[in-house]
Amino acid sequence: MLVLGIDPGSAITGYGVVRRNGSTATSVSLVECGVIRTATRAPLAERLMVIYEGVCELIVRHQPEALAVEDVFYARNVRTTVVLGHARGVVLLAGAQAGLPVHEYPPREIKKAVTGTGAATKEQVQFMLAQLLRLRTPPRPSDAADGVAAALTLCLGIGVPAFGHAQ
Amino acid sequence: MLVLGIDPGSAITGYGVVRRNGSTATSVSLVECGVIRTATRAPLAERLMVIYEGVCELIVRHQPEALAVEDVFYARNVRTTVVLGHARGVVLLAGAQAGLPVHEYPPREIKKAVTGTGAATKEQVQFMLAQLLRLRTPPRPSDAADGVAAALTLCLGIGVPAFGHAQ
Repeated sequence: MLVLGIDPGSAITGYGVVRRNGSTATSVSLVECGVIRTATRAPLAERLMVIYEGVCELIVRHQPEALAVEDVFYARNVRTTVVLGHARGVVLLAGAQAGLPVHEYPPREIKKAVTGTGAATKEQVQFMLAQLLRLRTPPRPSDAADGVAAALTLCLGIGVPAFGHAQ
Repeated sequence: MLVLGIDPGSAITGYGVVRRNGSTATSVSLVECGVIRTATRAPLAERLMVIYEGVCELIVRHQPEALAVEDVFYARNVRTTVVLGHARGVVLLAGAQAGLPVHEYPPREIKKAVTGTGAATKEQVQFMLAQLLRLRTPPRPSDAADGVAAALTLCLGIGVPAFGHAQ
């Protein structure tokens, strides 16, 4: 099971590709992570094209079986949140066009899946990502880590087979 | 000069195709208008795909020279505004991918361009659309009229040639 996780943003969109090999949480591994950057002075329409093409390229290259996308963070500045909605729109579009099931997770749910608490700090999330994926250091930059965390949330949430035993 | 105007919405996206033949405001005409409807119970990602494909189809069929898109209406419900942002995102993407200049107009600016006042009612806007485009009745439904109004805003705003005379 290969999952592409995305943390959308109009300036920086983070992503992580996570593989789950078996039925236990210890069988997850990081395939790739990184960010799609856009020129902050470019028109929004052009930036959306860069994000869309970047996600499409990741889907073609990795052939994931599902897309996990962080839900909107409601910033105090409504304008910021709305622009983020534009970026999420083209990410969801890329997933739907590829025929992938698209899972959306609120930030709190991602934190809870990775650390056990929805109130975890960014540092706690990054620490646990490194632990779960057996990495020496957390994924960087933090936007990439957020993409990895979204993918991991989907991988960890997949039920063990009906005949399996919880480990 | 052919302009495709769009009023994005996650449930109903209105559009209008307006032609401007000469240098005066009386030389505008309506080519086509209508709406792109999505199933409100379908997942957001699938609805975005319907909107995106609908706009792409309009661009291919009419070959407009520019895209005019109504800017976000800040609803009281932030969630509504954010979902609208997703729909706008895929509309702007379709325009950018076709290499079209994308013009974004706040609702007030559209009302002002069409009626002379940014405080115009929906009925005033529809009345003036019918007058300017010499239609017996205003474009319907109202979402289609909003798409037409966006296109008309761009058409009316195009400066007369340097050697021309204001009529």
